[in-house]
Amino acid sequence: MPLRFLTSGESHGPELNIILEGIPANMPLLEEDINLDLKRRQGGYGRGGRMKIETDKVFFTAGVRHGRTFGGAPIAMKLINKDHQKWLNVMSASPINDNDPQVKAELDAKYISKVRPGHADFAGALKYDAPDVRDILERSSARETTSRVAAGAVCKTFLKQFGIEIFSHVLTIGKLSVDNDVIASVSEATQCKDKYIQFKKQVESSELRIYDPSGKKDQEFKDYIDSIRKKGDTLGGIVEIFALGVPVGLGSHVQWDRRIDGLIAQAMMSTHTVKSVEIGLGEAVGRIPGSQVHDQIYRAEDKNPLHYKRPTNNLGGTEGGMTNGMPLTCKVGVKPIPTLISKLDSIDLDTKANAESHFERSDICVVPAAGVVLEAMMAIVLAQAFLEKFGGDSIAETKRNYDSYQEQISQK
Amino acid sequence: MPLRFLTSGESHGPELNIILEGIPANMPLLEEDINLDLKRRQGGYGRGGRMKIETDKVFFTAGVRHGRTFGGAPIAMKLINKDHQKWLNVMSASPINDNDPQVKAELDAKYISKVRPGHADFAGALKYDAPDVRDILERSSARETTSRVAAGAVCKTFLKQFGIEIFSHVLTIGKLSVDNDVIASVSEATQCKDKYIQFKKQVESSELRIYDPSGKKDQEFKDYIDSIRKKGDTLGGIVEIFALGVPVGLGSHVQWDRRIDGLIAQAMMSTHTVKSVEIGLGEAVGRIPGSQVHDQIYRAEDKNPLHYKRPTNNLGGTEGGMTNGMPLTCKVGVKPIPTLISKLDSIDLDTKANAESHFERSDICVVPAAGVVLEAMMAIVLAQAFLEKFGGDSIAETKRNYDSYQEQISQK
Amino acid sequence: MPLRFLTSGESHGPELNIILEGIPANMPLLEEDINLDLKRRQGGYGRGGRMKIETDKVFFTAGVRHGRTFGGAPIAMKLINKDHQKWLNVMSASPINDNDPQVKAELDAKYISKVRPGHADFAGALKYDAPDVRDILERSSARETTSRVAAGAVCKTFLKQFGIEIFSHVLTIGKLSVDNDVIASVSEATQCKDKYIQFKKQVESSELRIYDPSGKKDQEFKDYIDSIRKKGDTLGGIVEIFALGVPVGLGSHVQWDRRIDGLIAQAMMSTHTVKSVEIGLGEAVGRIPGSQVHDQIYRAEDKNPLHYKRPTNNLGGTEGGMTNGMPLTCKVGVKPIPTLISKLDSIDLDTKANAESHFERSDICVVPAAGVVLEAMMAIVLAQAFLEKFGGDSIAETKRNYDSYQEQISQK
Amino acid sequence: MPLRFLTSGESHGPELNIILEGIPANMPLLEEDINLDLKRRQGGYGRGGRMKIETDKVFFTAGVRHGRTFGGAPIAMKLINKDHQKWLNVMSASPINDNDPQVKAELDAKYISKVRPGHADFAGALKYDAPDVRDILERSSARETTSRVAAGAVCKTFLKQFGIEIFSHVLTIGKLSVDNDVIASVSEATQCKDKYIQFKKQVESSELRIYDPSGKKDQEFKDYIDSIRKKGDTLGGIVEIFALGVPVGLGSHVQWDRRIDGLIAQAMMSTHTVKSVEIGLGEAVGRIPGSQVHDQIYRAEDKNPLHYKRPTNNLGGTEGGMTNGMPLTCKVGVKPIPTLISKLDSIDLDTKANAESHFERSDICVVPAAGVVLEAMMAIVLAQAFLEKFGGDSIAETKRNYDSYQEQISQK
Repeated sequence: MPLRFLTSGESHGPELNIILEGIPANMPLLEEDINLDLKRRQGGYGRGGRMKIETDKVFFTAGVRHGRTFGGAPIAMKLINKDHQKWLNVMSASPINDNDPQVKAELDAKYISKVRPGHADFAGALKYDAPDVRDILERSSARETTSRVAAGAVCKTFLKQFGIEIFSHVLTIGKLSVDNDVIASVSEATQCKDKYIQFKKQVESSELRIYDPSGKKDQEFKDYIDSIRKKGDTLGGIVEIFALGVPVGLGSHVQWDRRIDGLIAQAMMSTHTVKSVEIGLGEAVGRIPGSQVHDQIYRAEDKNPLHYKRPTNNLGGTEGGMTNGMPLTCKVGVKPIPTLISKLDSIDLDTKANAESHFERSDICVVPAAGVVLEAMMAIVLAQAFLEKFGGDSIAETKRNYDSYQEQISQK
Repeated sequence: MPLRFLTSGESHGPELNIILEGIPANMPLLEEDINLDLKRRQGGYGRGGRMKIETDKVFFTAGVRHGRTFGGAPIAMKLINKDHQKWLNVMSASPINDNDPQVKAELDAKYISKVRPGHADFAGALKYDAPDVRDILERSSARETTSRVAAGAVCKTFLKQFGIEIFSHVLTIGKLSVDNDVIASVSEATQCKDKYIQFKKQVESSELRIYDPSGKKDQEFKDYIDSIRKKGDTLGGIVEIFALGVPVGLGSHVQWDRRIDGLIAQAMMSTHTVKSVEIGLGEAVGRIPGSQVHDQIYRAEDKNPLHYKRPTNNLGGTEGGMTNGMPLTCKVGVKPIPTLISKLDSIDLDTKANAESHFERSDICVVPAAGVVLEAMMAIVLAQAFLEKFGGDSIAETKRNYDSYQEQISQK
Repeated sequence: MPLRFLTSGESHGPELNIILEGIPANMPLLEEDINLDLKRRQGGYGRGGRMKIETDKVFFTAGVRHGRTFGGAPIAMKLINKDHQKWLNVMSASPINDNDPQVKAELDAKYISKVRPGHADFAGALKYDAPDVRDILERSSARETTSRVAAGAVCKTFLKQFGIEIFSHVLTIGKLSVDNDVIASVSEATQCKDKYIQFKKQVESSELRIYDPSGKKDQEFKDYIDSIRKKGDTLGGIVEIFALGVPVGLGSHVQWDRRIDGLIAQAMMSTHTVKSVEIGLGEAVGRIPGSQVHDQIYRAEDKNPLHYKRPTNNLGGTEGGMTNGMPLTCKVGVKPIPTLISKLDSIDLDTKANAESHFERSDICVVPAAGVVLEAMMAIVLAQAFLEKFGGDSIAETKRNYDSYQEQISQK
Repeated sequence: MPLRFLTSGESHGPELNIILEGIPANMPLLEEDINLDLKRRQGGYGRGGRMKIETDKVFFTAGVRHGRTFGGAPIAMKLINKDHQKWLNVMSASPINDNDPQVKAELDAKYISKVRPGHADFAGALKYDAPDVRDILERSSARETTSRVAAGAVCKTFLKQFGIEIFSHVLTIGKLSVDNDVIASVSEATQCKDKYIQFKKQVESSELRIYDPSGKKDQEFKDYIDSIRKKGDTLGGIVEIFALGVPVGLGSHVQWDRRIDGLIAQAMMSTHTVKSVEIGLGEAVGRIPGSQVHDQIYRAEDKNPLHYKRPTNNLGGTEGGMTNGMPLTCKVGVKPIPTLISKLDSIDLDTKANAESHFERSDICVVPAAGVVLEAMMAIVLAQAFLEKFGGDSIAETKRNYDSYQEQISQK
């Protein structure tokens, strides 16, 4: 991959680090570009205590100089976990003196042997032979998605250079859905810049990240979430992510692991709490005959650079493992947070006996926030595919290559 | 990746080739092991003409000696496209004399400029600057899945050494579904070897690859497919793939691209015609509260080596990006074949005018066959993750490593 | 990597296969382009019996249509091992009946337990738990380099589209060296097209692949090789490989594994019999002070597109892990073939006793042929780095990108 | 690769970051383990000013808890560049106000347009379209090798768990060589633990990192370096790196890019200032006949677990691209530092005119330090190959797998 990144950091460790390599030189990039998405990730109705503890802010420690990327240098970002100050002994990198009774008590209080169903705890503790289940949950925590959002925000900034926009909104939370007419609105938004801006503004103003021009749904969702909170339970839902302005021909049909739909599915499904990924109509394509599924193509006389138009986008912008110039659309199913106030039945790995699962501070519903993380994953996949196709070591070079390709295909 | 493979070959080219590297030495392997799955892939009610043209058979050209893998040598397989004999000029690797009017006529007959919606044709022709759309469809053809099935069959043979079984069955075709009680049957089958064998036998005997002990559904599905065929239309559906005997701890939570659920989703979604992937309950997890989703854990007194049991498997065998010892289950939505006898509206890339899409010989419904391909993709992902965890250059070494890990975790 | 390939095949198996993916579409490519280098690889004074058995010829089985690459389809090549006909039982992929005394005798005759020092035999047999050392030597055989030459020939054809030429010549064999003035000749050849053509022609006409305008050295080398042959011994030597016309900026300084010098060193050292790799002056750079090593830069008024010139090329065309516009030059030390007619002391893995090593038909000196293989490896590395920088899915696109970059840097 | 890492950071940026993923859980690891090698890297006679500015110290920011790795979490390390405080404006990630004359003057003072021959400056500035050559040299600086040493120190700690030791010493600096008898000493050291410890102690006590039991050579080397310093010149040399205790069978012959010798060569050649890599006798293998090159094998009656011995190690521990159980030995040629006090002729990219190269603070001779960096690169390659072969997610699991393999091959 021309673009690669690694992240590190624990939920209660000192900091998160992200190293991202492959963004062309001379691209404008500010910490604010990243902080905006970090803040969006922390929002959403139904979040728990942590989001109030700290507002995430990123610091560039490498790869950015005077507000632009430079010389191909890997971009490094760090986020300080302010909460770490309370965890200095528990998360100490150095050995600590557990003969000290106060230290010992602190460690014991944070020691975990009761695994939480729905989390990495059980499988991770066995796989990594963990003497303390905290060894697993510190890294498997959704805190990790902060790093993805940071990396994704850089990729979004890159994609914007080429007019590519990525956005998400919530379709359902638990048993509640947005109004059916949102589908038409989305369809319009993905075809018209002005409508997109309006759509985006509306969703951003909703704590649930739903499109609700009537203004009635928001309260309904909140009341529902509150009622579930009282029961000590949690909620999942469905998020839609789309990307506009994507050129024809990212990904490839020639080998299975280069198909863009596969790469998108991996990126989505690799995200905490995700259990389903649908591109375009998704599963529904299997319920209607082919004549109603496939997006027919017509000559367009308008200013569309490709001279073609497609009245429908049932396939969500990919054909044959490649982007086809239509908006990329993707629906992702998010499971309810598995850490419930009303605990689940589980086992204690030390005593091997039944036990209630450990409770670690948690949210009730992260569906709106999940959308922000999924936008980031979409951005990462598209930026990788974009750079694979267009190459370029400076943003000017990548742009030249991109423009000349657009010119080429407009001749077809 | 410790296991890697590349495939090559066109739909009407001389042969398909697969090179697969990383299977440990001394594993028993016969061409029959692969041919069995190739035959399963060619079956299913609703297939078109090609399946009758040729029965696929694989030849090992490297990496197998006297019925076993050896010395780490890459395994190479070839499949002869018998049909190629009729395409010698059209698919000639060497330049051909198109001054010869007969040759010219042959080429013209197979030249394509009208792209088919739903296929790689449009995006591929633009991306690769193809003078003839055949340049794209020859490789993007579902013929390529034959190579995946061959590679997957080797991986299945590998996984069987460790008691891992992979299987699939059809849940829906178009508007028709199997009986609801199949879910209970699947659940039983994934928990009991005898029931699995019975379940498998039943599905294998159905031309639709449905579980239909009553014997009534099969005919209903066939009649439906026939009715659609008469309309010149096509059908998709939903397939379930599962893997039994998967150990705890394949994949990892530590970095996004090592999560097994992401890798499974990529493999599934990268397959021709797939538009949705769900693990476990999939999208439905978002509709019910957390207390009903997460699979609780209990002490088990039975002979289960892990001493634990989980009455439900809503998450489909993955938690935190790792396998958790439960059956892996995955539902995949398959779109209807986009090549319709009743053609779709499209455009001609040469004239830039509206035109009906090109028709290339096709099937009505490939849902049953898709299951076989998806089994292969699942096998490839699991074999990769398995070898990454357990290492080993000979099958004896991999087995020792596997056994000692099983012993380790049984102590937890 | 945007360009990737896998090879398969045993020394006495039915065929060799190569799958190479990533070459842009619409590049002219003929089997003759590959066969020319295959023939060059088979040449050279001092070869043994095999080279007379068969003349290697490649067949495209995928990815090439009417004399050009197409649609991004992976290029597949196969080479038939004619000799395989005599090894049908020994190398059978299927189990064979060793109850048949004739078959049994045949197998016994080819069974090996005595490992050959200098080969993969010992380490390979242990690593892969091989019941028969033949399991190792069939794949570790230098026969594998045929596949590299085929893949490299495709890459050379690609690089030629951009005026990049790769060539090699022999500097020493055993204790004999070419005349010292060859260094000046090489230097001239790398700076002047006409001199390069003359240089190449001369080297190609020498059975030793030495530059010997005097015509005296050739016989001296041959006599020497003959004398060593009589002693039952073998010879190595030093080969120089160079690449002309390489643009500034392949590879990168930003991360260790993207440095082009590292990638070249890997490719060279990964080749059978290679034990040293030097770029530019190589080891000699450590013996002279910095003021005499570094290649100073001057303004050039000539037609040189970069407007700069460097009178020396001590660093061999790389600085900071990137190509710098000067010719790439590389010296590679090749060990003598380890299979000696006068056998080496070794051990028998079955009896665990001392024993003379097994003798498999062999060459006396492969230094000239090694150069052809090393050219291929250089071509593969450069084509990968080239495509990573310039992207492009069709040769026209890659060319546009390349040309616009050349225009950009000529402005500096 | 099962082990992967990325590094970031500029020479005068705020910090260096390293993320390393793949080390098994529960391995003891202390910051001191890394700091020891960081200090060794900063030593050596002939260093310039920077080494006095700051003593490098690493901080674990992730992946280490209570003195051991845990749960597979990526290990993150940071190093503060103390010097950065003087470069806050020049290296600011945020845009700065260059209307402020003082800021402007500071920026101008550090702006570079005159490229230094022998560095990444010229190629990098063109490739990355750098408006300021500092964009290149900040990342291409040998400061980056600090990150390699940190990553390598973790890998060394890992390898020590299995008795694998890596060490280096200097063979030549400029025209001076160590005594010839060092070769015999090295040979002894690599075969006998006690002699190795003595050898190591002696080399570590030398500021030149030479083996000089007589105590005379050290002063001779220093005087020579001082004389070169006076001339404003610089010196390179040759370093030998070796690894002891390496098991049989790391790497593989089955595909070119899995050969351990190729991977070692890449790692070495990718290191700043390296221009040659030789394994075992290296280039010299080409000058002597095969009968004197190949390392014969004999039955050993001693306690050697493999029951075999080889009196020579001319091939330096690799055969067929695999480790063969003998010590890995590697000689690496290091060029003189290209930043000379007596400047080199070069050009100014802004004026396009001839100009003396920019001078950035520098060393006279880094050969001893290079050895420490090369040890790190060797450790990284071996740890990767080790984990690829043995797998394992906890150090106990990797050890079990390793031990059972050692037991297996001791039966051969």
